Amino acid sequence: MDKELIVSWMEAGMIQVPNLLLRKYKEIGLDEKDLTLLLHICTFIESGNGFPTPEQLAERMTVGSDECSGMLRKLVQMQLLSIEEGISEDEIHFEKYSLSPLWLRLADELKFEKKQDDLKNTMHEES
Amino acid sequence: MDKELIVSWMEAGMIQVPNLLLRKYKEIGLDEKDLTLLLHICTFIESGNGFPTPEQLAERMTVGSDECSGMLRKLVQMQLLSIEEGISEDEIHFEKYSLSPLWLRLADELKFEKKQDDLKNTMHEES
Amino acid sequence: MDKELIVSWMEAGMIQVPNLLLRKYKEIGLDEKDLTLLLHICTFIESGNGFPTPEQLAERMTVGSDECSGMLRKLVQMQLLSIEEGISEDEIHFEKYSLSPLWLRLADELKFEKKQDDLKNTMHEES
Amino acid sequence: MDKELIVSWMEAGMIQVPNLLLRKYKEIGLDEKDLTLLLHICTFIESGNGFPTPEQLAERMTVGSDECSGMLRKLVQMQLLSIEEGISEDEIHFEKYSLSPLWLRLADELKFEKKQDDLKNTMHEES
Repeated sequence: MDKELIVSWMEAGMIQVPNLLLRKYKEIGLDEKDLTLLLHICTFIESGNGFPTPEQLAERMTVGSDECSGMLRKLVQMQLLSIEEGISEDEIHFEKYSLSPLWLRLADELKFEKKQDDLKNTMHEES
Repeated sequence: MDKELIVSWMEAGMIQVPNLLLRKYKEIGLDEKDLTLLLHICTFIESGNGFPTPEQLAERMTVGSDECSGMLRKLVQMQLLSIEEGISEDEIHFEKYSLSPLWLRLADELKFEKKQDDLKNTMHEES
Repeated sequence: MDKELIVSWMEAGMIQVPNLLLRKYKEIGLDEKDLTLLLHICTFIESGNGFPTPEQLAERMTVGSDECSGMLRKLVQMQLLSIEEGISEDEIHFEKYSLSPLWLRLADELKFEKKQDDLKNTMHEES
Repeated sequence: MDKELIVSWMEAGMIQVPNLLLRKYKEIGLDEKDLTLLLHICTFIESGNGFPTPEQLAERMTVGSDECSGMLRKLVQMQLLSIEEGISEDEIHFEKYSLSPLWLRLADELKFEKKQDDLKNTMHEES
């Protein structure tokens, strides 16, 4: 039994969360519920469900599905989450969430941070 | 500039979050703030700071340091977080957080889940 | 352009490699080519292709597809890799690789290591 | 005992390997031994040892320490690995490996790949 636990653990999988997201979510206007919602979307995408419903998401959270819908709408409006449309191989129209806008936003934050650092270093050297 | 962004991104690092934690935090009595606090502790430990203060943790969160202290206390009481004491090489007493109790608890949940599944399968075969 | 590189980087994804595998592959009788082959299988599985051909695997490696076939056979014989069969939803028979035997084997190594440590500690305390 | 295995497993840790590295190492002139050496350096850095000796690296590999030294030299010459020098807080001079050149190189490959794709799409649209 015991060793099989390791197998189940590995099979349950992990998601990778950029430290940058943890360090910056507050600065970009998110709270802990928003962050967790984004992580849930991540795990659904990885497990092959690219467009989980608010009900599916809320089931794992301490919020109701209505609040969850509202949060999803807000994240889309804030341009941190997008919904992509496509046609699958068997010609069925589908929608799926994309976290690309979030990574772009974090890249912006990183760029800004580096510029600030460079500026500080320049001023330091000049003085 | 642009390629260096990838380097900064890689150097900022990532933490691995077991999908199991995301699927089960609600069941074991945690909410999104508690979960996020645990993730913050994770990143502090990985970056070499094993015992971040409530102030350091609260700075990245949408909660004050008093609320953060209370949450830490609660997590220790719930036996999901522990504080380990030790003596460093240069004989200085130190404390650090350990997430071992959390992994143990998730292992319990996984075991229970497997037992339920086995039971279901047995009943299914017998009927 | 530059920020989009981060998005492509994130979308290309990462696999998680247990440090234990890196520390132990030699002890369990593998060399660097075997290890890399296992990692390739990992990425194929994650990208949705659970049964890559020796040709697909060899294309990314500095070995030919014949050598690759031989390595796969060896890994199965060593009981570090298994092939699972199943029937898909649309009633098609399929095969896929499973790395469960590898994780089981590493769990064994870990157990053995812990036992040795415990023994050492006991002997130390008694002397 | 059994559940503690999960704790040991988590504490042993994981490293994240970009899928891009697995897909491209052959194209950038590396073989499986080079790749594995880079992964070993990764785990040493993460565990706090930024400058493992060829002996420490070779111990985990199926190569001798002389061959390992040669491989390290080659990786530095290929500008995929660099050695950074610094002064620690207690004024001790130190050296450490950096994988930044590798990530830069992979970013280059990614950029080139995207350019090719864009070109293909443009030609496709025009025809």
